[in-house]
Amino acid sequence: LAPISETMTELEKCMESLIVIFHHYAGKDSDGNHLSKKELKQLIETELPTFLKAQKNPKVVDTIMKDLDQNKDSKLDFEEFMSLIVGLSMACDSCYMHFEKKCKK
Amino acid sequence: LAPISETMTELEKCMESLIVIFHHYAGKDSDGNHLSKKELKQLIETELPTFLKAQKNPKVVDTIMKDLDQNKDSKLDFEEFMSLIVGLSMACDSCYMHFEKKCKK
Repeated sequence: LAPISETMTELEKCMESLIVIFHHYAGKDSDGNHLSKKELKQLIETELPTFLKAQKNPKVVDTIMKDLDQNKDSKLDFEEFMSLIVGLSMACDSCYMHFEKKCKK
Repeated sequence: LAPISETMTELEKCMESLIVIFHHYAGKDSDGNHLSKKELKQLIETELPTFLKAQKNPKVVDTIMKDLDQNKDSKLDFEEFMSLIVGLSMACDSCYMHFEKKCKK
């Protein structure tokens, strides 16, 4: 039986990475299923440096935390974390579509 | 200047893959920014075979299309597609957490 990761498609590997990365940072404190603000900050600084560099607001992590923390428990579960990924991907997607249009002219 | 993909982190590459995969299938017809049902079916069959095999409902693509197509235009934009990815990742995440608990005992 081939090891799972060999049979996984790129999209399946992406989803696995999202889960593993979330739990890597969420697991730094006793609550392995939620990101505290400190853990979110570490995740963004390490995993999203390009995004962070583009931010002018020094308090961007606080803003993100407030936006994502839908149930106001000052920590992020996986679903709340995923809305960050969706938001960022959509922002990149609009750049992608804009870039595509310019190339096709 | 190192090529962009060399400086990208795994999380950034994941987001890029989600965009590229979406547009790879969405671009098969004239509307490159939306997935028709046919394109969605091709995407799921090719990129999510493990998920598809686990489905008993032969009409699973129709069900998914109906669930995701929030604005009822019988096609999926990137945001609607991302809710599929979030849903599937969350389902896998709960398996991940269940698996983690069993290992820690």
